[in-house]
Amino acid sequence: MTGAELIVNTAAGLQVDICFANPGTTEMPIVEAFDKSKRIRSVLGLFEGVCTGAADGYGRMADKPAMVLLHLGPGLANGLANLHNAKRANTPLVNIIGQHASWHLPADPLLAMDIEALAATVSAWQRTNRDLDRLSRDTADAVSAALQGKVATLIVPHDHQLAPVQVPVVGKSSHEDDHLDQGSVESAVRMLHKSGPRTAVILGGRAARRRGLTAMAKVSAATGCSLFIETFPARVERGAGLPLLERIPYFPDQAVSALSQYECVIFAGAREPVAFFGYPGQSSYFLSEQQVRVHIKASPRNMENALQGLADSFNGGSKNSAAGGQCASVQRPQLPRGGLTPLKVAAVLAALQPEGAIIVEEAITSAGDYFQLSKTAPAHTYLALTGGAIGQGIPCALGASLACPDRPVINLQADGSAMYTLQALWSQARQGANVKTLICCNRSYAILRLELARAGKQFPGEHAESLTNLSNPALDWVELSRGFGVPAARVDTAEELARELARALAAPGPYLIEMLL
Amino acid sequence: MTGAELIVNTAAGLQVDICFANPGTTEMPIVEAFDKSKRIRSVLGLFEGVCTGAADGYGRMADKPAMVLLHLGPGLANGLANLHNAKRANTPLVNIIGQHASWHLPADPLLAMDIEALAATVSAWQRTNRDLDRLSRDTADAVSAALQGKVATLIVPHDHQLAPVQVPVVGKSSHEDDHLDQGSVESAVRMLHKSGPRTAVILGGRAARRRGLTAMAKVSAATGCSLFIETFPARVERGAGLPLLERIPYFPDQAVSALSQYECVIFAGAREPVAFFGYPGQSSYFLSEQQVRVHIKASPRNMENALQGLADSFNGGSKNSAAGGQCASVQRPQLPRGGLTPLKVAAVLAALQPEGAIIVEEAITSAGDYFQLSKTAPAHTYLALTGGAIGQGIPCALGASLACPDRPVINLQADGSAMYTLQALWSQARQGANVKTLICCNRSYAILRLELARAGKQFPGEHAESLTNLSNPALDWVELSRGFGVPAARVDTAEELARELARALAAPGPYLIEMLL
Repeated sequence: MTGAELIVNTAAGLQVDICFANPGTTEMPIVEAFDKSKRIRSVLGLFEGVCTGAADGYGRMADKPAMVLLHLGPGLANGLANLHNAKRANTPLVNIIGQHASWHLPADPLLAMDIEALAATVSAWQRTNRDLDRLSRDTADAVSAALQGKVATLIVPHDHQLAPVQVPVVGKSSHEDDHLDQGSVESAVRMLHKSGPRTAVILGGRAARRRGLTAMAKVSAATGCSLFIETFPARVERGAGLPLLERIPYFPDQAVSALSQYECVIFAGAREPVAFFGYPGQSSYFLSEQQVRVHIKASPRNMENALQGLADSFNGGSKNSAAGGQCASVQRPQLPRGGLTPLKVAAVLAALQPEGAIIVEEAITSAGDYFQLSKTAPAHTYLALTGGAIGQGIPCALGASLACPDRPVINLQADGSAMYTLQALWSQARQGANVKTLICCNRSYAILRLELARAGKQFPGEHAESLTNLSNPALDWVELSRGFGVPAARVDTAEELARELARALAAPGPYLIEMLL
Repeated sequence: MTGAELIVNTAAGLQVDICFANPGTTEMPIVEAFDKSKRIRSVLGLFEGVCTGAADGYGRMADKPAMVLLHLGPGLANGLANLHNAKRANTPLVNIIGQHASWHLPADPLLAMDIEALAATVSAWQRTNRDLDRLSRDTADAVSAALQGKVATLIVPHDHQLAPVQVPVVGKSSHEDDHLDQGSVESAVRMLHKSGPRTAVILGGRAARRRGLTAMAKVSAATGCSLFIETFPARVERGAGLPLLERIPYFPDQAVSALSQYECVIFAGAREPVAFFGYPGQSSYFLSEQQVRVHIKASPRNMENALQGLADSFNGGSKNSAAGGQCASVQRPQLPRGGLTPLKVAAVLAALQPEGAIIVEEAITSAGDYFQLSKTAPAHTYLALTGGAIGQGIPCALGASLACPDRPVINLQADGSAMYTLQALWSQARQGANVKTLICCNRSYAILRLELARAGKQFPGEHAESLTNLSNPALDWVELSRGFGVPAARVDTAEELARELARALAAPGPYLIEMLL
C-alpha cells in the first residue's frame, strides 16, 4: 500500500464517501488511490472555491465530512473563503493538501507557499504528516476532529503519498468527544422556571434540527420563552410542523431592539450575536452586560439530546406561548403578478417550493422578505451564508444536492456573490445535480449602497457608483449558464418566474433562472 | 481630511494612478476618497483574483505599483493566488486592505479572519496601521517597498479610515533603496574574462529589458558567454533587434542537460533555477555544486545600469558569439493550414502578432512551441506565469493593457487556467481593453496527464481520467465570453484562426477566440 492509499482507506473506513477535488501533480497519488479503492466518489471542481463550498454544503446536510483535495498553497488559498464559511458554520470537513516532496521543499520551488499559515486561518485542527507511521492515525484524527463540527486540514508531502507503507489502517481516532454538560442544561431549566417569558433562546448549529426544535417548541409552550434563530444559520429546519422562529436582525439597532426585552438568554448551538460590522456610535454587542446568559454545552451529536432533556424537565407543563411556541401549518402566499421585485420573488418561491426542498440562500438584500414569507411553507431546510465570504451559494447548493440527491435544492442567489464561484455551475451540470438557481439580478453590490445610504451617503460619487455597479456591460446569466452546460431562462415578471420555476422543478437536473429585478 | 483621503493623497503623490478594487463596507471610505481626490483611476473586478492579477500585469508593464483594494480577510484570501504570482515576479504592488474597526474586532464578527497571517504569505512588506499619525508614513513606506519590486500590504482599520486627521502628506519614504553592488559586477567581469565561452548568464527581472539585453548581447559577442532566460520570466523583451535567449527547460533532465556544459553561471535579476516539482530520483537543483556562481546585485531600477557597466568593460572586444550573441531579425513562420494543433496555433500567432504586442502566456502544455517560433517575430514583450498559481492570464492581460493602452495585448491562454479567473473578461469589456484572448481548448488538465505519463502511468484510471478532464459537458467559451460582454468566435482550423485573429487585431477592444485543439 502507498501512503496515499493508506489515507484513502482510512478515510473511507470512517465513512468519508465523497471528495471534492482540484488536484495537481503533488496530489496525483491520492487520485490514483481513489481509483484503487473505489470507495470514495470524486467530484471535480474547476476552481477550488467550488470544492470547498460544495464540501461545506455536503457536510451541513450529511452531518459527516466530505474530503477536499487541494493543490499546494495556491489551491488552498483559492479555497479559503468558503472554508471560512465552513468554519463559521461548524461544518465537518477534511482538507487533504498535497505538499512538495519533503526533500524538495528547501529548494523553494516556485509554487511553494506557507501552507501551514494559510491553513491555520480556517482550521480548528491541522497537522502536517511528518512520520509515515503516523499517517493513518493523522487521517483518523482529522476525520474525528471534523466530526466535531470542525474544519480539519491534513498536509501530506508528495513523497509520503508515494512511499510504500506497512502500517495498519486505524479504525478510529483516539480522541472522540461526545460530551453533554448536564449542569448547563440544569442551569437553563432553572432560568426558565424563574423567568420563562422573559427568556430568549437563541438556536443555531445542531440545535436547529427537527428533534431539537420540536423539543424547544414544547419548552416554549411550557415556559413562555421566545425562540430565536441566528441571523445566518448554517442549517435550520423550518416550515409546516416546525416552530416559528424569530430571526435575529442584521442591523444592530434592530437586533438590540428585538433582544432588549429579555432578562435572560439561553444559547443552544449558537454563539452570542454581534454586529456584522462596527458602526460608529453603536455597540459591537446586541446584549447588555445585565442580561444573564446560559450556554448549553454539548458536542454536535449530543445537542439535540440536551434539548430533549431540557424539554423533559417541563413535561406536561403549558403556559402562554410566546413567539416560537406554536408550530406552523402550511400557508402559502398568493402568486403575485407583474414586474419582478424582491418581494415578488420571495412570494413566488414560497408559493411554489416543494415539501422537503433545501433552500440555499445567498442574497442578502434581495432575500430579505423570503425568510418571513416562507415560514409557513411546507417543511424545508434553509442554509445561509455563515461567514460573510461571498461566493458560497452555487457550490453549497451543489454539495447539498449530492448529500441529498432525492431532495430538490433551490439556490436563491445574488448576482454579485454568484459571480465569485460561478464555475460551480459546470460541476452541477456534470453531476446532474438537481439544483435550481434563481439569480437575483439587481446588477449592483446593493448591500454596499444600502450601507452607504445608512451612513447618510444617498448619492454616491462616480467611483462609488462605478465600484458598486455590475452593469455596463450587463452580465448575461443565461449565456454564462449555458456556457457551463446548465440550461437557463430569463424572466422579468412574476408570472414568468412562476411558470419557469414550476417547469424547472418538474424536471431533474440543474437549471438557472435569471430574474431581472 | 479623513484617514482614507490621507492614504489616497499620499499614494497619488507617489505616482500611484490606478486601483483594482473589489471593496466592501470596511473599504468604502477609500472609495469615497477616490471620488474626492480624482487622481486615482478605479477599476472594478468581480472577483479579487481579477484585481490582484490585473495589478500584477499593470506593475510588470508600468514599473510602478497599482493599488489593490480588498475587503477584509476573505477578499485578501480570494486574491492570494495572483499575489503569489506577483511576489514571484517581483512586481511592484500595493494592497490596501480594510480591517474591522479596531474597537469592533474583539467581538470576532463573522467576517473576521487573521488578515495579517494571510498577508504574510505573499507580502515582502506589510504593516497594520495602529497610529493615525503614522498613516501617511505607512502608505509612503508601502509604495516605496513596492517600488523595490515587492508586494506591499497595508491593513487599515475602518475607524482609522473614517477618522479626521491633521497630519501632512508624506512625500517620500524614509527608506529608499537604490543600491548597485559594483563588486558583484567586477566579479562577473573577471569570470567572463577567465572562462567566457564556458559561462552561462541567466537573466530575469529587470535584466530582461531592452537596454540590459542589448548590453548583454555585446557581452556575449565579446566573451562567447551564453544567454539564458528564466523558465517563467515576469517580463522579457524579445524578437527582432533583441538577442536570442535560450529558455531554461521546465523538466529537470532537460534543464540539467542544457546547463551542465557551463563551468560558471552569472545571475542577473534571476534566482538559481530549481525543479518545479520534486521528481523521485532527480535533484531539486539544476546546477551542481562545482559550477561557480556570481550574482549581480542591484536594485530593480539599477539592474540595467549594472549590465551596462558590465558591457562597458568589454567595449570593442569581440569573440566568437555563442547562443545569445546575435540579435534576431524578423522572420515569421508560414501560415499553416488544416486542423488546429498547438504547433499551428503557435505558428499563426507568431506569423500575425503585430510589432509591439504584449504576449501574456498561460498555456503550459499548449504554448510549448510558441516561445521558439516567436523568437524572430517583430519586437514584443512576453509575460509568463511566474508562480505557478493558475488563473493569472486573463487578469494579467487586463492590467498590462491598462498600463499600455497603445499596445495590443494577446493572451495565449489554457482553458483549465482560464476558468479560474474568467470574470476578468467582464472588466476587459467594461474598460474596453485592447486584449485578444486565445483559449487553447484541449478540454483537459493536460499538464497532469503529461506528468502522469512521465511517471509511467499512460492509462489513467476512471478517477484520474475524470479529474483531469474538462469535457462532459464541454465548456462553451463563446457563450461564456459573450455572457461577460466580450465578443467571441470559435475556430478549429489554422485558416479560421488566422482570419479571426487578423480581424480581431484590426479592431480595438477585447475579443476572444476559442481554439478547439
